[in-house]
Amino acid sequence: MAKDFVKRSENFSEWYNELVVRADLAENSAVRGCMVIKPYGYAIWERMQATLDSMFKATGHVNAYFPLFIPKSFLSREADHVKGFAKECAVVTHYRLKTNEEGTGVVVDPEARLEEELIVRPTSETIIWSTYKNWIKSYRDLPILCNQWANVVRWEMRTRMFLRTAEFLWQEGHTAHATREEAVAEAERMLEVYADFANNYMAVPVIKGVKSPNERFAGALDTYCIEAMMQDGKALQAGTSHFLGQNFAKAFEVQFLNKENKLEYVWATSWGVSTRLMGALIMTHSDDNGLVLPPKLAPIQVAIVPICKNAEQMAEIDTKVQPVIDALRAKGISVKYDNRPEYKPGWKFTEYEFKGVPVRLAFGPRDLENGTCEVCRRNTLEKETRPLDGIVEYVDNLLVDIQHSIYQRALDFRIGRTRKVDTWEDFKVEIEKNGFLLCHWDGTVETEERIKEETKATIRCIPFDAPEEEGKCIYSGRPSHRRVIFARSY
Amino acid sequence: MAKDFVKRSENFSEWYNELVVRADLAENSAVRGCMVIKPYGYAIWERMQATLDSMFKATGHVNAYFPLFIPKSFLSREADHVKGFAKECAVVTHYRLKTNEEGTGVVVDPEARLEEELIVRPTSETIIWSTYKNWIKSYRDLPILCNQWANVVRWEMRTRMFLRTAEFLWQEGHTAHATREEAVAEAERMLEVYADFANNYMAVPVIKGVKSPNERFAGALDTYCIEAMMQDGKALQAGTSHFLGQNFAKAFEVQFLNKENKLEYVWATSWGVSTRLMGALIMTHSDDNGLVLPPKLAPIQVAIVPICKNAEQMAEIDTKVQPVIDALRAKGISVKYDNRPEYKPGWKFTEYEFKGVPVRLAFGPRDLENGTCEVCRRNTLEKETRPLDGIVEYVDNLLVDIQHSIYQRALDFRIGRTRKVDTWEDFKVEIEKNGFLLCHWDGTVETEERIKEETKATIRCIPFDAPEEEGKCIYSGRPSHRRVIFARSY
Repeated sequence: MAKDFVKRSENFSEWYNELVVRADLAENSAVRGCMVIKPYGYAIWERMQATLDSMFKATGHVNAYFPLFIPKSFLSREADHVKGFAKECAVVTHYRLKTNEEGTGVVVDPEARLEEELIVRPTSETIIWSTYKNWIKSYRDLPILCNQWANVVRWEMRTRMFLRTAEFLWQEGHTAHATREEAVAEAERMLEVYADFANNYMAVPVIKGVKSPNERFAGALDTYCIEAMMQDGKALQAGTSHFLGQNFAKAFEVQFLNKENKLEYVWATSWGVSTRLMGALIMTHSDDNGLVLPPKLAPIQVAIVPICKNAEQMAEIDTKVQPVIDALRAKGISVKYDNRPEYKPGWKFTEYEFKGVPVRLAFGPRDLENGTCEVCRRNTLEKETRPLDGIVEYVDNLLVDIQHSIYQRALDFRIGRTRKVDTWEDFKVEIEKNGFLLCHWDGTVETEERIKEETKATIRCIPFDAPEEEGKCIYSGRPSHRRVIFARSY
Repeated sequence: MAKDFVKRSENFSEWYNELVVRADLAENSAVRGCMVIKPYGYAIWERMQATLDSMFKATGHVNAYFPLFIPKSFLSREADHVKGFAKECAVVTHYRLKTNEEGTGVVVDPEARLEEELIVRPTSETIIWSTYKNWIKSYRDLPILCNQWANVVRWEMRTRMFLRTAEFLWQEGHTAHATREEAVAEAERMLEVYADFANNYMAVPVIKGVKSPNERFAGALDTYCIEAMMQDGKALQAGTSHFLGQNFAKAFEVQFLNKENKLEYVWATSWGVSTRLMGALIMTHSDDNGLVLPPKLAPIQVAIVPICKNAEQMAEIDTKVQPVIDALRAKGISVKYDNRPEYKPGWKFTEYEFKGVPVRLAFGPRDLENGTCEVCRRNTLEKETRPLDGIVEYVDNLLVDIQHSIYQRALDFRIGRTRKVDTWEDFKVEIEKNGFLLCHWDGTVETEERIKEETKATIRCIPFDAPEEEGKCIYSGRPSHRRVIFARSY
């Protein structure tokens, strides 16, 4: 299966595209820019969803559902917002088809034109704040802590599976608060949730920070983000949480009576992660042999492959293996026992390796005799023979170990590809090697734009934990008080 | 809260609309025909989803995700299919907005017109079978058992929340098989799953049957359905499962090499249930005091309300109640303890009653003294005082009892409103009283259409368990071999 599979070092981009298809994660559809998420890819996404959803609920959020369509006039209410999204809107203009004159097919019925065009939501702030207007009268109605799992559409010109598609799946949280402080705290809290998820479930180490004004969400006062480094050294924004101030409350006239009985505009946040996380997961851990999945999100955590010459031996192994399967499952470990006779063990090994199954066990005739089995860990491809006695605890610990190892490996990689750069000459050389460059910046939009034009690098974030340090802007030489992260990005 | 709430007997339709809004289930949005599903309504839907999803997985199905958009030409490939959906298609024609000439708003950019219009999926057979074409080469690739949870759009002219909305949420299963028998068996199996879910989780008794040709899904050879009776005696189709034959395989040229190495067209099924189930749930059980929810799907199964005069008493009750809450939760029962001081007990009673919480417990000062509490069951509104000792087991059994009782009540109601009718004169009288009429029918589309024109009644289904019985068609007098169910429906 992994035959003719391109190496990361040869062509990282092609490696990614091929991996997505060959590991049965997704494929391009007949509709430009839209992907089909295949069952194996969707099973990983389902695990992401379930984990995130329980984290949202544990922090007091509830789910709801708002319309797919947004009246064009709603989108225009917040000036920055519409500017940010107008160029990538899918527009519904008609609501009926009819048979063509020749009777051979269907055409859009010109008489079924909508009075006002509807936009397929690129994000839902406007439709949600038009709804919140009816929900909020008094401080007693606040906070509102809603999330929705939904599809959104942004008509991107250049698309790549999971990373940038015209339609994608995501969750979008939209909260309403009585005070600025509470809204800021909410936006920060949700960034913590995202960072926790990325670090501890995806095993993708992320840097938390705030976006420069240039990279802010359209309509936000502040955008917080988590940034990850892919194996080619490029940055990937894995999640964002926005402090929206009172912008949307003002655009939709959402006011509340505070405890002093005075009318005030409501404070807002929104925050989202999407199927883009799948791209981050793949590009952080996978290797030239295929996918590498963190045990906590792997649809199959342990694959067990019997090796035998005939049906009799297979039956013997089946009997021997069943208690191991039962015991693993009793621990909540997801096991696939693959005793299909029509496929050879070697084919199965490659298959589960390619699909990133964290642990593979193999039982052969000799193992039957000796009471052993072969254990192979996907992240290092190391194999060892272990006694069956105690194998369940061993595998359980191994899964924990793999989860930690791949996180640590990714963290070491990021640290190794992050360096301080202090001159413009160095910057231009270093950025060609990708990775994160810690640099001083004068805080202006102009400088950031110039740097982007000249090098394609952008400020990924101003890290929350960036220490104060006096320095000079890498580009303009003007004074700066802390370093920010520059990188090329997905 | 239930003040001024219209009675079912006064105006069933208004009762329903008001209940949906006042119980915080859903509301109409600013977009014509699209609803907002509010957190409490969505929490019920989430429980439905979780249960159904685990039932689908237990029967071997996997989830996947296919594009929201369908190229217009795809929809036209299957003649009956396009005829069925053309009149209610939302059509995307453009992919960009631009600032208007006055600079005051945005307009659709006429230069960003799509070469081929895209339809927002009303159902996904066409896009999915265009994908399956690439997945299926040989009998080894079959069966494919995919489901997707998605939103769909059908531009309905008259909409009602949950029952008929322009956008709705649903699941759609799409399976591919090597033989006709296997596909028919799959369609039947999924109807059984739906019936199991309706009967045993929603507590909505349903009749399983097959649709008459007139009521078949556009593109199906057979449509199986589950039909429920609402409290006004009208029928509601709660789920359908379609045997699609080779229609879509032929439309999209999906062939496979069978074991004899010959090319054959693939056999298909599709099956779906939607947020419409919410409407069925509400209209089956709820009463003039608000929602009545089956314990198995209630977001809150037990509400506990303390009754006290001061903070000191409240603290005493808090202490006393905590072990009860813990013990209930340990049994997997979802509990809400509402000790908010700003609301009075009476207000809380009405609130949980209106929201259909199956069991409410109240603790007052006298209960503190006596070691008792008041138990109120929502379905009958009966109250009794019970010792705290053993209260957890009592409540646990009570929830099971309520689940059964509301099912039995709905079943008795349906049986009471179902009768045999043998003459056309009687039919015209009886149909005005609603309910199910068991009648002989000559099997022709013409007769069914005439009856519909004259009485607005349709054939809901030909029940699987309808016994053979010779008779004469209620309308034409021609011979018939079994009775079918006529009713007016949602």
